[in-house]
Amino acid sequence: MHFDHAGIATDDAATLAELYGDLFGLETVHEEVFDGMRVVFLECGDGYFELLEPITEGTISRYLEENGPGIHHLALATDDIEAGLETAREHDVSLIDEEPRSGAWGHTVAFLHPKDTGGILLELVEH
Amino acid sequence: MHFDHAGIATDDAATLAELYGDLFGLETVHEEVFDGMRVVFLECGDGYFELLEPITEGTISRYLEENGPGIHHLALATDDIEAGLETAREHDVSLIDEEPRSGAWGHTVAFLHPKDTGGILLELVEH
Repeated sequence: MHFDHAGIATDDAATLAELYGDLFGLETVHEEVFDGMRVVFLECGDGYFELLEPITEGTISRYLEENGPGIHHLALATDDIEAGLETAREHDVSLIDEEPRSGAWGHTVAFLHPKDTGGILLELVEH
Repeated sequence: MHFDHAGIATDDAATLAELYGDLFGLETVHEEVFDGMRVVFLECGDGYFELLEPITEGTISRYLEENGPGIHHLALATDDIEAGLETAREHDVSLIDEEPRSGAWGHTVAFLHPKDTGGILLELVEH
């Protein structure tokens, strides 16, 4: 697997996208409203920063209330997400998603529980 | 700039490296003791996961005490770190490092303050 993106919780994706464009030259390559969030992908090499701004109450709005803005998760790309989940099960890693589901940008995703992955919320993503 | 690495604070870099190898196929490509930390780089595509295990008291040991293990920072690669810092100054972004300094793996690094970058500790790194 290889790095796909860092998911970043923010109160204002448009302003953060502009700042990261100005500071680092990162360009917005995709944006959509998905699952109650404004989602903005900034290209940075082969991977992305995924800015996540909640529109309705949900995981990211709760994260912001508890932690403030910051890095929410890391995602690794795979061409076989089912196999990735099976390997995680074999290593007794708790799964947040027992089955792959639809994610932003039309990708298929599944999250592993941070308690079994070194404290990091890890997402598997298949494009 | 493009994604270089995600810095991950951990109590046990060797065990986490083995787990990420087993789960995701990430290979250890460099390790060293640097600045009171055991530092392990796992290759994931064009970038890395940088595992940071404190040996002596310092930034990462304090981070672990306060937050537990997890994602500590994100790093973007640049071929002109001085220009990157100058751009940050022009946008009134507070700098943790006013001047580039030596980082792990012989790289030159400088950190920007999360209060001005959307809550994210961002590192500029020049290889």
